[in-house]
Amino acid sequence: MPRQVLTPQAEDFPRWYQDVIAKAELADNGPVRGTMVIRPHGYAIWERMQADLDARIKATGARNAYFPLFIPQSHLTREAEHVEGFSPELAVVTHAGGKELEEPVVVRPTSETVIGEYLAKWTQSYRDLPLLLNQWANVVRWELRPRLFLRTSEFLWQEGHTAHATEEDARAFARRIHEEVYAAFLRDTLAIPVVLGRKTARERFAGAVNTLTLEGMMRDGKALQLGTSHELGQNFARAFDITYLSRAGRQELAWTTSWGTSTRMVGGLIMVHGDDSGLRLPPRLAPTQALVTVVKEGEGVLEAAHGLVGELAAQGVRGELDARVETPFGRRAVDAELKGIPVRVEVGPRDLGTGAVTLVRRVAGGKTVVPLGGVVAEVVAALDADHAALYAEALARCEERTVPVESAAEAAEAARTGWAQLPWSRLGPRGEAELAEAGVSVRCLTLPDGSVPDSEEDPEVVALVGRAY
Amino acid sequence: MPRQVLTPQAEDFPRWYQDVIAKAELADNGPVRGTMVIRPHGYAIWERMQADLDARIKATGARNAYFPLFIPQSHLTREAEHVEGFSPELAVVTHAGGKELEEPVVVRPTSETVIGEYLAKWTQSYRDLPLLLNQWANVVRWELRPRLFLRTSEFLWQEGHTAHATEEDARAFARRIHEEVYAAFLRDTLAIPVVLGRKTARERFAGAVNTLTLEGMMRDGKALQLGTSHELGQNFARAFDITYLSRAGRQELAWTTSWGTSTRMVGGLIMVHGDDSGLRLPPRLAPTQALVTVVKEGEGVLEAAHGLVGELAAQGVRGELDARVETPFGRRAVDAELKGIPVRVEVGPRDLGTGAVTLVRRVAGGKTVVPLGGVVAEVVAALDADHAALYAEALARCEERTVPVESAAEAAEAARTGWAQLPWSRLGPRGEAELAEAGVSVRCLTLPDGSVPDSEEDPEVVALVGRAY
Repeated sequence: MPRQVLTPQAEDFPRWYQDVIAKAELADNGPVRGTMVIRPHGYAIWERMQADLDARIKATGARNAYFPLFIPQSHLTREAEHVEGFSPELAVVTHAGGKELEEPVVVRPTSETVIGEYLAKWTQSYRDLPLLLNQWANVVRWELRPRLFLRTSEFLWQEGHTAHATEEDARAFARRIHEEVYAAFLRDTLAIPVVLGRKTARERFAGAVNTLTLEGMMRDGKALQLGTSHELGQNFARAFDITYLSRAGRQELAWTTSWGTSTRMVGGLIMVHGDDSGLRLPPRLAPTQALVTVVKEGEGVLEAAHGLVGELAAQGVRGELDARVETPFGRRAVDAELKGIPVRVEVGPRDLGTGAVTLVRRVAGGKTVVPLGGVVAEVVAALDADHAALYAEALARCEERTVPVESAAEAAEAARTGWAQLPWSRLGPRGEAELAEAGVSVRCLTLPDGSVPDSEEDPEVVALVGRAY
Repeated sequence: MPRQVLTPQAEDFPRWYQDVIAKAELADNGPVRGTMVIRPHGYAIWERMQADLDARIKATGARNAYFPLFIPQSHLTREAEHVEGFSPELAVVTHAGGKELEEPVVVRPTSETVIGEYLAKWTQSYRDLPLLLNQWANVVRWELRPRLFLRTSEFLWQEGHTAHATEEDARAFARRIHEEVYAAFLRDTLAIPVVLGRKTARERFAGAVNTLTLEGMMRDGKALQLGTSHELGQNFARAFDITYLSRAGRQELAWTTSWGTSTRMVGGLIMVHGDDSGLRLPPRLAPTQALVTVVKEGEGVLEAAHGLVGELAAQGVRGELDARVETPFGRRAVDAELKGIPVRVEVGPRDLGTGAVTLVRRVAGGKTVVPLGGVVAEVVAALDADHAALYAEALARCEERTVPVESAAEAAEAARTGWAQLPWSRLGPRGEAELAEAGVSVRCLTLPDGSVPDSEEDPEVVALVGRAY
């Protein structure tokens, strides 16, 4: 790159993050403090996340629905334990239709309470169960220290809410979402390795009996929670009266789950894969996988470039033509690099004269001159290799920066650069509280073989400790 | 059908509409008056509308983005003419973060003002134009007389906002959306014939220089506006300072457009195609095109049904298996009819014994026994025929119930059962005001050949008059 466009990560990571969001045209601050404008490139990334996750969610049998933005204030007092965690974050509508409302309405911070009410209405008999719902929506949690994609007063998310006849079924479903939907999506589409675990009581979602989490390590060694799946036991069913007539003819209380992921994942994607030249998009997610760039005009150049986009499409590659020859070539190259487009195919009169084009790869780096006839196969191979390379790089970093420790003090020290692991029986809630004072938290509890413990009582349980976004 | 599930349309059309929404499980009232819960079947219909329209919108070169839900109250006073139409409809957040806000924020009734601000920011040079944005979002306009899908305080929509270098380009784009995107979608996917026209000054969107509309006739003869596309001239560009540096090096004011469609289209779909047995989904839209129903268990029945769903999928048909043999067959048949599933394939042990299944069609009606080997081809042919039949039926009704008249009084009379056409030069704004008192409006202005007039001054212009939702 001719000149430094972004603050280097090593110099100031938060500044690099802000720079890349601005220069890659991902997002901007909204006019109301704490809100976010998601620009077309950022939104295309979110749209592809949505489409991919949505297909995985539907494959579990869940169906999408839409519940209202507004919740009567009184609803949020119904389940006191649940609401406690939100009240300072609520945005409240007091005036509408030109006058003051008799009862203020809250802008949903989550749809838990509304959906609970309808789950109760729609759950009549055991035949209605499991009732598996998902919603894509905007939610509002007022944010005083906003950060684009990571913490914004309004964000976009998906929230799943399900009701089951038995505890086993609810538990299995929460785990299925955790592993088969979220972890698989993060690994296979976003190329993000994650640690799957359960939250400690302190970190658990209010009202849940078990919160399953996916923690990813960012390039600065901090953790980002990329999704959660909650077993709610019968707590919500009791609060919302979600009962059903069993096969045996008895009224029974249902078991529920809820689970969510959000635009936060875009922040995670940036911080896991981005480098000093900008974003690096994992190829399976990238809205544009191959940018076919017309270097400058010349005989047959535009035709060749057009033809390549068509050939790429025929092989299932999302290609895009960049024929903006009025904009200097160097600027367009830097722009593509900032935006993280995996592969660039440069088509210019000189190369074309020898029947070749130039392939530029964002992840592997370097330029190679490739005969026109072989370029599509090269692109396909490059995309596969780059997905693997991004995943391997992120995994190696995560492994390197996770160290076994023996005490809370050592854990706090290790959390300066990455994560620490220590037996939960040694740390315990008291050690956890001590770490919290230093801004360090138990991200999750796992078993030594990487599986998720059924309970935190198991003496084998390991605590994963780090600083978090 | 064994017994009458719905109020007949001829008896009470509004009641029929409510009944079908409830019985086909499309939507429900939300806990806050005027809001709506879109149930899975209703949402699946909306999702398919979204996906189809989204592809058509993207084909114009527009890109999706997302702008904040909250707008500072002061922003809405920037363009007084624009805002006037909304103020009594606004929902206002006065408290957030546990305290009263210094400046209240409004829940967006449209994103016109926010997007205007960012269009101004992103439009620097002629190279940035045209700048074509679209957003899928929820918006809020407080509604005192709500009606599911047609008028709800919160609704889902798509709003496009574009900036152009010239008036011609902006005009052509607004027309392209009107014809190639909206009208084509309504005709080719929803099987809804529409009249394309321009609004009179009275009915025009505040701030627009021209509002293009698509009007569909419902089964009760009333009109529903199914989408609008506005040429905003330079009004918004002036209010939001959307200027660009021209090729000649001068600062110029841009020309903008905006255009939208909403969940209202679901209401239109119900009222154009639904009959006394329930919904009738146009096959290209239908989330489930063919429901393969296991009549009752028997040797090879489930396998045959499963196999059929797979064969249908291989031919691009969206099939779904209904193997809920615990639920009485008659109830499942009525349910499929209510939900408007175009084709049902009944697989039972008796038919299967002779190598056959039964095909039941929602639009054409009737049952036919078909050899197992030929059923997929029959289904494909049925879906094509049903799309054409639904369109033809709606078009014939629209033509039959549209009558030429000579005066405002005759128009008001004709509007009791359908639409009236009369020369705009004869009706004029005065006649329009007179009709308005009787609850009748000029739905749009067209030319005798069905094309859209460039101006309402043209002496050939015809006014289409009717009652509207």
